[in-house]
Amino acid sequence: MNAPIEIGLAPAEADRRVEVVRALREILPAHCVLSREEDTRPYECDGLSLYRQTPLAVALPENEEQIRDILRRCRQLGVPVVARGAGTGLSGGAMPHADGVLLGLAKLNRIVKIDPHTRQAVVQPGVRNLAISEAAAPHGLYYAPDPSSQIACTLGGNVAENAGGVHCLKYGLTVHNVMAMRLVTIDGEVLELGSAALDAPGLDLRALVIGSEGMLGVVTEVTVRLIPRPAAARVVMASFGSVEQAGDAVARVIAEGIIPAGLEMMDQRAVRMVEPFVRAGYDLDAAAILLCESDGTPEEVDEEIARVESVLAACGATRMQVSRSEAERLLFWAGRKNAFPAAGRVSPDYYCMDGTIPRRFLGQVLAEIARMEHTYGLRCANVFHAGDGNLHPLILFDANVPDEVERAERFGAEILELCVKVGGTVTGEHGVGIEKIDQMCVQFAREELDRFFGIRHAFDPAGLLNPGKAIPTLARCNEYGRQHVHGGAVRFPEIPRF
Amino acid sequence: MNAPIEIGLAPAEADRRVEVVRALREILPAHCVLSREEDTRPYECDGLSLYRQTPLAVALPENEEQIRDILRRCRQLGVPVVARGAGTGLSGGAMPHADGVLLGLAKLNRIVKIDPHTRQAVVQPGVRNLAISEAAAPHGLYYAPDPSSQIACTLGGNVAENAGGVHCLKYGLTVHNVMAMRLVTIDGEVLELGSAALDAPGLDLRALVIGSEGMLGVVTEVTVRLIPRPAAARVVMASFGSVEQAGDAVARVIAEGIIPAGLEMMDQRAVRMVEPFVRAGYDLDAAAILLCESDGTPEEVDEEIARVESVLAACGATRMQVSRSEAERLLFWAGRKNAFPAAGRVSPDYYCMDGTIPRRFLGQVLAEIARMEHTYGLRCANVFHAGDGNLHPLILFDANVPDEVERAERFGAEILELCVKVGGTVTGEHGVGIEKIDQMCVQFAREELDRFFGIRHAFDPAGLLNPGKAIPTLARCNEYGRQHVHGGAVRFPEIPRF
Repeated sequence: MNAPIEIGLAPAEADRRVEVVRALREILPAHCVLSREEDTRPYECDGLSLYRQTPLAVALPENEEQIRDILRRCRQLGVPVVARGAGTGLSGGAMPHADGVLLGLAKLNRIVKIDPHTRQAVVQPGVRNLAISEAAAPHGLYYAPDPSSQIACTLGGNVAENAGGVHCLKYGLTVHNVMAMRLVTIDGEVLELGSAALDAPGLDLRALVIGSEGMLGVVTEVTVRLIPRPAAARVVMASFGSVEQAGDAVARVIAEGIIPAGLEMMDQRAVRMVEPFVRAGYDLDAAAILLCESDGTPEEVDEEIARVESVLAACGATRMQVSRSEAERLLFWAGRKNAFPAAGRVSPDYYCMDGTIPRRFLGQVLAEIARMEHTYGLRCANVFHAGDGNLHPLILFDANVPDEVERAERFGAEILELCVKVGGTVTGEHGVGIEKIDQMCVQFAREELDRFFGIRHAFDPAGLLNPGKAIPTLARCNEYGRQHVHGGAVRFPEIPRF
Repeated sequence: MNAPIEIGLAPAEADRRVEVVRALREILPAHCVLSREEDTRPYECDGLSLYRQTPLAVALPENEEQIRDILRRCRQLGVPVVARGAGTGLSGGAMPHADGVLLGLAKLNRIVKIDPHTRQAVVQPGVRNLAISEAAAPHGLYYAPDPSSQIACTLGGNVAENAGGVHCLKYGLTVHNVMAMRLVTIDGEVLELGSAALDAPGLDLRALVIGSEGMLGVVTEVTVRLIPRPAAARVVMASFGSVEQAGDAVARVIAEGIIPAGLEMMDQRAVRMVEPFVRAGYDLDAAAILLCESDGTPEEVDEEIARVESVLAACGATRMQVSRSEAERLLFWAGRKNAFPAAGRVSPDYYCMDGTIPRRFLGQVLAEIARMEHTYGLRCANVFHAGDGNLHPLILFDANVPDEVERAERFGAEILELCVKVGGTVTGEHGVGIEKIDQMCVQFAREELDRFFGIRHAFDPAGLLNPGKAIPTLARCNEYGRQHVHGGAVRFPEIPRF
């Protein structure tokens, strides 16, 4: 655990804090600079509370000009900077640096423009994900990526982590829905990335910055694509006698050429955890349930729902129910979307993983996770974006039981490394942050990590932006002792090409 | 014109050639190394024949191992390397370097795998675009990006230029359809970029490499997404009394929430040029025609076509015709797809531009182009991917008339700079290459060009891969004398945010 307990500051550290705070106060009004322990404490972690650290100071700029000045000044002083949106991230990407400035972007919360004609919105990074759709609603438009935290999470953080959501199978991740950005570099320069056009000349810096976890610069404005709210949406809820059958059904739906608006799976442990909390009407006897949504015109939805039902029936669904109203549709989803809080009700602590795997390994990987439950002596509930093979195993533990935190961490690490072995990745949508940095050593070869550092150097030669996150140093990988093997797995039985 | 006439080699150049050819022969069989003038001549240009240059030698490797050895050796010798696919590119991206090796990838033409289960194909870079769809057809699948050159162009080139096509409005560009790649760096290292998953951890090198015009490495294997062939497809052909009306109709179709499979526009000059050649049944009296395609299930297509007809009628379409058979649908498209050869029939030479603009400026930009016809004394036929605002003005000229080449070039440059001014870009899908390198000075600010060079340095510190293409040096921009102004335009009346 990287969770040092503050036991007062050494004199050198205190001097440094005074110097940094003085520099920030030259740029910002007094109420926008926080440095007392009780003021910086709320910023010590993001949604991944396993990792905590207070910063030297918190800066809360109100505009781009101030951000440019802060970054330029931090560059001069050699002070690390960690940007933060709403702090809902799940990989510790916004955890502060002990010797650095935490740059909170909450005050940049203005929707600059909603243009129904071009179907685009321009927003500041502190705008909440859902606020865009609310502002676009009068025009029949919405912003598609919908992470479960969408009520609270902000666009800046969505960009940093390339956020997804239950509808990203059909509508894509943040990278597919952000057209352009303004990025301030550590030198205080402003870059304009992307454009309103489908393609942009030159290297695709827009795609490079999305998901770069705050290492390349600070985003100060985002132009997103809005899409028309579909006229109709219905969801099929189906029960299966085994997770393998449910996994197979997912593959069959996709193989039939159907691209559902959402295709989610929950295993029995997850269902039984959620149902008493949400009362979504889930089947407590099913080994796994699927939620498969169709949206479009009413005719399209009728036709697609019929095809989905026929595929699921052929795959052995033991019970099927189609939402009969918008309220029922939302209720079916409410269960899935509240899996995390539901885990909090049945277990003192839980640890949410975020690996991806090729869809056809769903059954096999779930069987391996079940085996690991015995190895580590911990329970795991599985909810996932089945359509795109993105798993969210929720490892349940109690931090007050000696050894359980460490076992949960090792359990999670083994799941992620299993994902890599079957040809998947260590993160589907939550990012690497501090949490998965060791698993990056398994995911990537030295040559690839070299390129990451080279690119980072092109933007931030001193490495001051979010240091120690997202990309492991070679020294760290050597210490971790497990390395990438080109072409994939070492131990897993079937090694896929994909 | 960068087209030096070969007048025999200076002794130093001859020595250099001997050295390079000897090095290549140590790696490749004799028939895979070409160096005599009559053998290298066919490689002197790509589809943009305005720019020609023979290389020192042509290398035709047969596998990845040879490519690794060639690149390592060229790095040691400090020899520039330009990769080439089928040579159908339209921006001179594959034009050889006078002192370099032209790396032809035609022998890497194997479809490694078609996997109907995961709906992916793995292909070598020399595989033709259309060959993938042909191989996938028995499974009811196809590869979506369809540049007009798809019979001939290869995937390696498609990746280098991020190729599009008439259906990219709905199905995306190459970057939206390539999941993973193997990339050999100038040091002979192999990087594995991307994965089968929707998101990948770390920086998105996959998106970075797509469209990087051969500057970051040589792609040796590409994994693409295949999609189900739609059950039905029909196209509406509509005539309009003015290009402004047609442009307005395009914006209205999109604003209605319809995402057509293709939405193309041709002006009267283009229609009159194409019709005698293809006999597609185009309306010769229309000031502009639109082609709007719908695909999906038969029910979806019926419904969408009806909506499209009603929008177009409301926008003042003077005539509408819906394809009644697959043969007629293909005939309607054949006219559009053969606009370039049709231009070759009516004019000794033509120069195809490739700018993008926000859709709402279509009418205004076309009026400006009409004005430029008078300024430069040349005719221009306009065909374009209207749905995504990607213009392909075809400037007609005669290279034998003194001054016409230069006037055509200046006309083209002014069109591209106009595109930037209204918030668009200098290339929609053909790439920058050598042709548009000066316009990149207008498109990008110094800070942005700096980052491009920084990233390039992370992959190729000596700058040996395709030097002099795609990214202009600051010295070149200073010489060109026109620079980017942040926030856009200088002279154009309405400055859009997008």
